[in-house]
Amino acid sequence: MTRDERLPTILRKAQIARIEDDRLLIGDRRRYPTELTNIACDSVREIADAIRAMVTQGGGPLQVSLTTMRLLARRIHAGKENSSLKLFVDAARELSDSRPTNTTMARTMQEFVSQVSTWYTCNQVRDVHGDDLITFVDDIIDRLEQRFDQDYELMSDIGSSLIQDADGILTTCFAEHSFILSLVKAREQGKHLTVYVPETRPYLQGARLTAPALTELGIDCVLVTDGMGAHLMSAGKIHRYMTAADLVAMDGTVVNKIGTLANAIAAKYYHIPYHVFSMSPDASKLSKDDIIMEERNGDAIRYYHGVEVTPASIKALYPAFDMIEPSLVDTIITPRGAVAPTEIDRLYRFSTSFDGGLS
Amino acid sequence: MTRDERLPTILRKAQIARIEDDRLLIGDRRRYPTELTNIACDSVREIADAIRAMVTQGGGPLQVSLTTMRLLARRIHAGKENSSLKLFVDAARELSDSRPTNTTMARTMQEFVSQVSTWYTCNQVRDVHGDDLITFVDDIIDRLEQRFDQDYELMSDIGSSLIQDADGILTTCFAEHSFILSLVKAREQGKHLTVYVPETRPYLQGARLTAPALTELGIDCVLVTDGMGAHLMSAGKIHRYMTAADLVAMDGTVVNKIGTLANAIAAKYYHIPYHVFSMSPDASKLSKDDIIMEERNGDAIRYYHGVEVTPASIKALYPAFDMIEPSLVDTIITPRGAVAPTEIDRLYRFSTSFDGGLS
Repeated sequence: MTRDERLPTILRKAQIARIEDDRLLIGDRRRYPTELTNIACDSVREIADAIRAMVTQGGGPLQVSLTTMRLLARRIHAGKENSSLKLFVDAARELSDSRPTNTTMARTMQEFVSQVSTWYTCNQVRDVHGDDLITFVDDIIDRLEQRFDQDYELMSDIGSSLIQDADGILTTCFAEHSFILSLVKAREQGKHLTVYVPETRPYLQGARLTAPALTELGIDCVLVTDGMGAHLMSAGKIHRYMTAADLVAMDGTVVNKIGTLANAIAAKYYHIPYHVFSMSPDASKLSKDDIIMEERNGDAIRYYHGVEVTPASIKALYPAFDMIEPSLVDTIITPRGAVAPTEIDRLYRFSTSFDGGLS
Repeated sequence: MTRDERLPTILRKAQIARIEDDRLLIGDRRRYPTELTNIACDSVREIADAIRAMVTQGGGPLQVSLTTMRLLARRIHAGKENSSLKLFVDAARELSDSRPTNTTMARTMQEFVSQVSTWYTCNQVRDVHGDDLITFVDDIIDRLEQRFDQDYELMSDIGSSLIQDADGILTTCFAEHSFILSLVKAREQGKHLTVYVPETRPYLQGARLTAPALTELGIDCVLVTDGMGAHLMSAGKIHRYMTAADLVAMDGTVVNKIGTLANAIAAKYYHIPYHVFSMSPDASKLSKDDIIMEERNGDAIRYYHGVEVTPASIKALYPAFDMIEPSLVDTIITPRGAVAPTEIDRLYRFSTSFDGGLS
């Protein structure tokens, strides 16, 4: 089985983002699992708008931004854009700004821009039709994607080894590749497990993405509401709490979807280990003081899946992310190994910005 | 202002339950605040079904059961039912069974049955038309209602005294009379306060009942999702956590709406006091081992207002209540005073069953 075949539909590359007829098709996670549809984008502006509108989320914007770079090379080749480094730099900046908390996309774009700027310095003059540019861009993106794929494999090897037979696992939101591959591998190792999935209001990523994805894979899962995590722990149903991270700072502070902090505190209270998957701890963020926390429009709270729950006169607040202090986290699983939060600095701080940021 | 005038619409007696044309009209909290409608019930069976279907909740079933006793006396008087103690006993049992976790209604019904049985022993023979029965039943119910009203006043006096100027208060679900009157009185005392209201999935009592009720009263409130309590605490916005209790056992164990435990643990973690309103700690429940915990149908998690959020193939779990251990609770506010959970036994255990159960 290829890696894509072990993943649920929603995580397959072509479903997240693909190029068709000179446009970028982004899989619309807002309509999944009711519908498997795409949003077609003609410009970088439209792609950034789609990211802001939560068409895709989690690791989706990273894959979208990588595929956007392939699209730009093709648009240059087709004569629809003038070939310039500025085109790539502006696109990278606009995409990065569309999701300020998770900096993996921003750092990946920065790495891409560095490489493509070398190309513009050396090759632009002779590649008048942009043929070489497509090859060059595709090669950079292929290598970045391969590195992410390798990282997912390494991290899910660790994740699956932490899971024990008969585990009840609580998660939050949609923890994507590393988490889901950990579950797949644990099952392949003969371990039985049950995953408890909080619905993750207001966008319901748990109800709409995680639970259907696990059900598609035949992994035993149970949907609950966001207030039930502590209850499940007190009832002895939970043996470990596992989430992704939108950001990990060098002091081991974890940023993840709102609701994660409540479960992390309850896990500590019940002596249940909390494992965090982080593809790329951010060496530029020394502590929580360096982290930009994204606030979203409170209107989302007054609606439930498009249905208005309570009148517009009711004020609502929507902090999108939780910041979890290192003492609440047991293990951070990275491509460089699984360590305590206090060890992240040693693993990532003094690496080069490329390597430290991404691999 | 009468007590009813200080309360939001949803808590006014005639809105909770009233008799019209020989039927009981129950205010339909499932449709509030979008609609202010009633469900008309012709029989005790229909009333019990309505309670099970969550037409009313919290303290609603208590008010409904009291009004049902008035209705039965009138139906006897109108010749639509034969006068018998059994009629009242069966009704009391059926209503009590419709909501097993909150035992206040059951104990109030038990007290009513004891008193009406005395009447049947002494008076039935001469009251052939049931005129005296209406007077007798109304008198019992009036006295019970007055006692609850006095209790609400006592408890809200205490609640308002605990609230400090500029407090941010987190609650859960719909904490009803004692809590809302506490807020009203605190404001009358010149204190500024902001109430943070988790939406309380799956029935959204926070979004649909608490937030609109507070907004109607002009009390500053902010709607959030159920996973945001710990976040608000970590951000320094919360100074106390205040909820009702569906049940308090003699060891100080508190039962309340699912989601309460997570917030109680987070409050302990952040050294924020947790105050619980309990109209009637249950002297028959010595500890958590004596408590019946109500499970509801997991389908509710997959739906809202008929809108399916995720496919029927997804398993879902709906434990309706949390059990909060005494060490997580700072104060239990009762009609007999505000005490630490460890003091509840002293206040309530060795009272008579009537008095201990209800006043």
